Amino acid sequence: MKPHGPIPPGFSADCDGMLMIGDRRADDLVAVAGDTPLFVYDGAMMRARVAEWRAAMPDGVQLHYAMKANPFAPLLGVMAAIVDGFDIASGGELTAALDSGMAAADISFAGPGKRDRELEAAIAAGVTLNLESAGEAERALAIGARLGVTPRLAVRVNPDFDLKGSGMKMGGGAKPFGIDAAAVPELVRWLIDRGADWRGFHIFSGSQALDADAIAETQGQTVELAARLAREAGAVPPLVNLGGGMGVPYFPGDHPVDARAVGQALAATLRARDPMLAKSRFAMELGRWLVAEAGVYLTRIVDRKISHGETFLVTDGGLHHQLAASGNFGTVIRRNYPIAVADRFDAAPAETVSVVGCLCTPLDRLGDQVALPRAEVGDLVAIFQAGAYGASASPAAFLGQGPACEMLV
Amino acid sequence: MKPHGPIPPGFSADCDGMLMIGDRRADDLVAVAGDTPLFVYDGAMMRARVAEWRAAMPDGVQLHYAMKANPFAPLLGVMAAIVDGFDIASGGELTAALDSGMAAADISFAGPGKRDRELEAAIAAGVTLNLESAGEAERALAIGARLGVTPRLAVRVNPDFDLKGSGMKMGGGAKPFGIDAAAVPELVRWLIDRGADWRGFHIFSGSQALDADAIAETQGQTVELAARLAREAGAVPPLVNLGGGMGVPYFPGDHPVDARAVGQALAATLRARDPMLAKSRFAMELGRWLVAEAGVYLTRIVDRKISHGETFLVTDGGLHHQLAASGNFGTVIRRNYPIAVADRFDAAPAETVSVVGCLCTPLDRLGDQVALPRAEVGDLVAIFQAGAYGASASPAAFLGQGPACEMLV
Repeated sequence: MKPHGPIPPGFSADCDGMLMIGDRRADDLVAVAGDTPLFVYDGAMMRARVAEWRAAMPDGVQLHYAMKANPFAPLLGVMAAIVDGFDIASGGELTAALDSGMAAADISFAGPGKRDRELEAAIAAGVTLNLESAGEAERALAIGARLGVTPRLAVRVNPDFDLKGSGMKMGGGAKPFGIDAAAVPELVRWLIDRGADWRGFHIFSGSQALDADAIAETQGQTVELAARLAREAGAVPPLVNLGGGMGVPYFPGDHPVDARAVGQALAATLRARDPMLAKSRFAMELGRWLVAEAGVYLTRIVDRKISHGETFLVTDGGLHHQLAASGNFGTVIRRNYPIAVADRFDAAPAETVSVVGCLCTPLDRLGDQVALPRAEVGDLVAIFQAGAYGASASPAAFLGQGPACEMLV
Repeated sequence: MKPHGPIPPGFSADCDGMLMIGDRRADDLVAVAGDTPLFVYDGAMMRARVAEWRAAMPDGVQLHYAMKANPFAPLLGVMAAIVDGFDIASGGELTAALDSGMAAADISFAGPGKRDRELEAAIAAGVTLNLESAGEAERALAIGARLGVTPRLAVRVNPDFDLKGSGMKMGGGAKPFGIDAAAVPELVRWLIDRGADWRGFHIFSGSQALDADAIAETQGQTVELAARLAREAGAVPPLVNLGGGMGVPYFPGDHPVDARAVGQALAATLRARDPMLAKSRFAMELGRWLVAEAGVYLTRIVDRKISHGETFLVTDGGLHHQLAASGNFGTVIRRNYPIAVADRFDAAPAETVSVVGCLCTPLDRLGDQVALPRAEVGDLVAIFQAGAYGASASPAAFLGQGPACEMLV
């Protein structure tokens, strides 16, 4: 038997033992959607998450949603109403962000390979570009001049530090993201001289960290770096985007990040900040932390079989919808995401099984030798922490399968 | 500097140094397609590959194409005319296979999680099902009875051996694929008793092996196993699908599999086979080996930047089209696929660079510290071995990017 990650709080069973999501039975949700596999996103959980963040963080710090975590249109509609901005990473996300109702002035666009047509669409719309290189800065200014629009330009900084313990390091040493800190002051002066509307800094040093102290330390370094760069540039950044970093517990032994501790440390950091940043605003950019727990992936058991004494539950889902949960996306050692039998959510484990997907590849494993209640063909398996980097971060067309259903409740 | 995999034979530069694919310049192909990134598949290379296989293998052995490797419709059209059958893995692939013109009787359907609606479509069409469990056998018979159609049923065997050195092991021990060998004879007798049209065995023990001896040894074991199971069942299998296994060289130090050695060993195996299989036909099921080398992924350089002394070429492609090449699909240690600057395909390396994709994630790396000719913004980077498990096996929608162009030449 191998352990699985912790089931997020807030999920319970009804009197029949059926998993409830947003006060509705999992099997009823499947009936409404019309098919499995199905991603269900609980809007109330997302709202609670945003409220938790606001209660924890110092007043005035803005909350941006990094829509790469989950671009499902109804979910964007919820988020647009409760966060202060969207961070996007492509022209496709630009369209989706504008469609959600988010104001262009509250959208910023980061990404190391923006094409001219993407820069043009963003500048025309009035979106802020987080510049990733001097070359991109030149292209943006040229496009702005051609369009007769003053581009809104922030500078993405490649910091000399990274976020300790983060699942994805995006700073510290040579990186394709942003502009090395040493070159930033000169670029800022140049942008201002050229008449750009300089919006400030974007400093993203890592993501998926669970240690509040590490996040706090990085935020302290980030504010210090922003102040130093501002002094060297001789310009006050209107906004300092501190990046994200707050992760979620996927695996056995993971614990939720202590948001209050992050907020208290950030308050202290901001109180003690260099007067150069006295009039700057600050933002955090979160994706996963806001939406992962609100999502559940439901997949139906198609077969139950025993091979050499091991029991396999074969489902109609798989890595084509849940690449990260299968252990095949940026992970070295496969570990089990939180998993349950939705039909017997309150039952004790009764057997050790492996839950596999329907794809004809040994990579397609959703639960490896996990202890679960007895499950039969037709039952639903639930994979949790499915609200981020699930549907859109998986190869939906693989083996001719196609996308899962998605539903906001 | 880190090495990259070997550029496949058959690619050359024109007098300007431009990579030629199917006798056409890479940049001209991009102009015709209208955009980058672009997958180009060379039909002549696929035909040559099939001819090479037929020349190497004993007469009468059938060649099946495993369309999970690449389901691009024009490519299926080419393959349908030159192979003896298609192997499919979903209802979606069933539709694509029938649309390609392949006869239903020459299509077989394997996959551990076939749903009732997929079984029904396959049985109605007259496709052979490779049964993965006793439960699936019962469902197939019930559906056949309901439709008034005699189902064509083969038994997928989970062998007690695996293919040594294979990138994907699909046999040996507890597996979600097929039926344990010990249970197969009874199932075959039961199927025949129940009036099914029993088509034989499907025995797939691994894929992506480069060692001809290992493949030959496994084929020997496979034929032996098929004979033993046939004797125990008291029935001659009309077809024994020997699986695939022949891989392609992706990485530094990889060498092509010696197809002639595989063929010679298979001829000897078949000559010496148990008389129980005297009237059986044999097939190999290949995907990657038939199409990988015929495919090139072309992506344009959007930015060229230096961070902490390292040069990055940022492209408009990335892991959303080339997940395996980025090292994030079933690989533990990232290594470089074969890569080149298409615009200077005949030039010597002049610098060490990292080629990254446009996605805002550190996972998106197509070439890590590779030695390449000097490349500028606007140049095309080519990733080879892109004809299999590229476009359809990657998360095309990630970060709002969308699919690449695809073109058969």
